[in-house]
Formats: sequence, structure tokens, C-alpha cells
Amino acid sequence: MSSRPVFYISDQTGITVETLGNSLLRLYPSVKTNIITLPFIDSISKVNKVIDDINDLQKKSGNRPVVFVSIINPKIREIISSQNFLVLDLFDLFLAPLTAEFNVKPSNENIKSHTDADSKEYEVRMDATNFALSSDDGVAMADYDKSDIILVGVSRSGKTPTCLFLALRYGIFASNYPLTEEDLEESKLPKALAPFRSKLYGLSISPERLRNIRIARRGEGKYSSQQQVNFESRAALTLFQKNHIPYSDTTHQSIEEVASRIFSETKLVRRISP
Amino acid sequence: MSSRPVFYISDQTGITVETLGNSLLRLYPSVKTNIITLPFIDSISKVNKVIDDINDLQKKSGNRPVVFVSIINPKIREIISSQNFLVLDLFDLFLAPLTAEFNVKPSNENIKSHTDADSKEYEVRMDATNFALSSDDGVAMADYDKSDIILVGVSRSGKTPTCLFLALRYGIFASNYPLTEEDLEESKLPKALAPFRSKLYGLSISPERLRNIRIARRGEGKYSSQQQVNFESRAALTLFQKNHIPYSDTTHQSIEEVASRIFSETKLVRRISP
Repeated sequence: MSSRPVFYISDQTGITVETLGNSLLRLYPSVKTNIITLPFIDSISKVNKVIDDINDLQKKSGNRPVVFVSIINPKIREIISSQNFLVLDLFDLFLAPLTAEFNVKPSNENIKSHTDADSKEYEVRMDATNFALSSDDGVAMADYDKSDIILVGVSRSGKTPTCLFLALRYGIFASNYPLTEEDLEESKLPKALAPFRSKLYGLSISPERLRNIRIARRGEGKYSSQQQVNFESRAALTLFQKNHIPYSDTTHQSIEEVASRIFSETKLVRRISP
Repeated sequence: MSSRPVFYISDQTGITVETLGNSLLRLYPSVKTNIITLPFIDSISKVNKVIDDINDLQKKSGNRPVVFVSIINPKIREIISSQNFLVLDLFDLFLAPLTAEFNVKPSNENIKSHTDADSKEYEVRMDATNFALSSDDGVAMADYDKSDIILVGVSRSGKTPTCLFLALRYGIFASNYPLTEEDLEESKLPKALAPFRSKLYGLSISPERLRNIRIARRGEGKYSSQQQVNFESRAALTLFQKNHIPYSDTTHQSIEEVASRIFSETKLVRRISP
């Protein structure tokens, strides 16, 4: 069967509609799709060009296109909904109930987001991102002091990408503490972390997964050996438990999941609006 | 006026519903909101607890809560929709038309995303993120060779966060080339970049914005002086134009916007599904 053309059309980045569309399409695993995201479609001429392209693809594939739309301008939306596509219009579906509830008309203007370069929140987000980058793996005491949270774990347990994601999504200042061989052997709280006990959060990982990641990165060797990953994985877990450090197992989680879990389980406060 | 309680409730990370809800609420700038995201609400007991909390808040604020829901389990959704909230259920609104169109029932299972730790795409994403991190600002020829795209710009034009975002969202291998004083004076293609002409993409920035960012980061000084930022901002633009390097102005854009624009204007191919 030829695949079903799916379009995400947005007058901005397309991230909202892409995220929503993918969550929905995952529920139909038997449907083969060909997904195309079209961002910045914010004029009549652009949308007319897009519609020509979609119609061309429809002729080729023989399947009716599914079109998710996130566009504020009603005229552009009308042009899309007048076509023979299955159109799922985010604004149409949600604005009517929200407008009734708020008793306020939605603004017709393209309102800038909190994280646009002109906003103060942009600065916070950049600062948090730079903080995650600069404190990556070689950390000074001053960084821990400035941190909102300190992720503790063995090498390749997912600390850095999680710090970056916490920075980008929440504007949180996150730093790392990579557990050393010595820390793991003693299974007591590393000295450098003692003053920051309330900021600690552990990332645990299964030996199998740790071994796979390390092999992928550095090949076979002591670093990725079964014995080494067994030791590190278990010792890290013991260290978290003995010292009452909250932790999450990253073995089967995406970065987004780990970050969301940390955020919801701790008392972290967003520095940028959602 | 007291603010309107808004809840984003999800059985997963809450990113989809948060992204959608925020796009919608931005259209009602006069409505004061108090937004709370509740991820991982995947059991009857968890949702009952959540409902108690929402009802408590409703009593305090006196405003009817607006609740965006992204939960697969129909029983949990029913519990929420039976309350006196304005419930906007992502799945309810979209699944009926999609199911009719595909003529397939949606799966009731919680299907894992492409970027969960168990998937191959997770590896690609991690590799791309590590690539962006490791090639940050001190780049070897080998990195340029492996890059899908090379972002060119002056210091603080937004290269690194954009590279990270390209990695996280698309799995794209992006590296940086920071323009040196010498490059800028000569306004010709830097030698190191000559073999990679087709991969180059410039980030331009206004002198005012560049000055503000540099002051915020390093204080007043030559680096942030009016003369210096005037020179760098203009010389970078001239260099892009003379050498036919496509570019985007980052002055008023968020990281997401810059990354989306680069992706849509170039022939870059996703390495991870949307």
C-alpha cells in the first residue's frame, strides 16, 4: 500500500502541530505515512503554492492527504479547508470553546512567544543553556552553588542531554556530577556534593544499556566491559539509595521523559513560561 | 481579577499538550492564567488525586479550571470529563475524524515514541547532540566532513544553541564556524570552509542585539563596544552576501524559529522521525 501523505502546516515553526500530529499518528501504527512539515506559511501566496504541491502529491499517491493546520489568519485557513483534504485545524477545534469560556475574542495578531529573541525569557534560556554547556563534566564549586539541580550519575547515564533539555524547556540551571570510581567504591556522598544535598538528583541505568551505549561510543574495552558496567550500574544505585538521593532510571526513557520526571518530582521552579 | 487555573494533564511528558495549550492561550493576552503541568498521570489513583487538587484550587480561585488532556486510557479521560471543568481533550477532538479517515481503530496501548531510549533513533539523537557539544567552537576538519550543516557567524550570534536544537529535533549533525577578526576583515570565504561550501549557513545579527548579549555575558569592554559590534555585524553580513552563503537574521527569532527556518530553507534530511 502506498503511504498516506500527512502535512503539518504552520504560520510559525510547526513544532506545536508536529508534536500533536505525531502523538496522534502513533496510535495508528498500521497506517504508513509520509510526513512533511511546512513552517512559516504566513501569506496567501505561500499557501497557494503549498496547496499546489499537496495536490500534486495526492495525484501521485492516490491517497487523500491528511493536513494538520496551525495558522492564525482565518483567510489562509479557509483556503486550506476548502480543499479535498482531511483538514484538522487546531485553532478551529479549540478556539470556539476557549472563546466562550473566557468571553474574550482571540487576538488576530501573531503574538510572539516568550522565548523570542526580544524577550527577557530568551536571555534566561540562553543563560541556562550556556550554563549546562559550560558546566559539562568539569565543574567548579561556584557552578554547583548557582545550580538549581545537580544530576549525579556514571559516565553515559544521560546527564548532559538532560541538563540541556532542562535548560531549553524550563530555563533551569542544571549541572552534572560524574561519579568517579572512588565515589562508587565508597558508596558515600562525594565530598564536593555535601553542601548541595538538597539539589541532588541521580540518574541510574541498567548495566546492559550502559554497556551498549559505551560500546557504541568507544568500542569494546574496560570502559564497556560487562564487569565494569555491572559494577558502576549497581554501585551508583546503592549510592543513591544509601544517601537518600532521589533518582530515576533512564534505561527506557527518552530525554524528555527523564527531564519531565525530574521536574515533576522535585520542587524546581520554571524560569521561563511554558 | 484572580487568575484562571489552567492544567495540562498527560499520561506522558506533557510536552504535546503544553505546546498546544500555550499556542492557544497566547491568543488571549488579556486572560491571566496560572498554568500547571501534570505529567505521567497514567492510573486511576493518580487522576483521582489530581482532581482533588484541581477542585481545591477551584474553590480558592473561584474560577472554573481549564483542563487540557492528553491521555490515551478512555477510563481516565472519562473521570476528568465528568468534572465541572472546561475540558479540552486532544484525543477526543482528533481521533474521531482520523479513525473515520483511516478506517482503523486507534491502538489502546501506550506506544513508545521514536526517541525512547530503546530505539535506534535515540542513539542517532544522542550522537547528534554529542556532536554539537564536542564540535562547539573548536572544530576539527574531520568534524566539518561529518557535519550535515555548518553554522557560520560571529561570537554570540546563536550558533551553539541552534546546533543543539537541530540535533535534538531533527537528529542533524551541526557544527559551528566562529568568524575570526581576520575572516571579517577580508570578507572572503575562510579557507577551512572552502571544501564545505554547500554545507554553510550564516547567522546574522543586528549590532544592537549583539551588543546587548555581549554586555550581559561579559560586561562592557572592547568585545561589546559599539564600534566592535558594528564592525562584526556588518562584516559578517557582507561576507555571507559576497560568498553567496544563505543566511538568516537571528535578531528577533527564537532558537526554534532559527532552526525551523534553516531546516525548511536547506535540503537537510531528518535523521529522526518527527
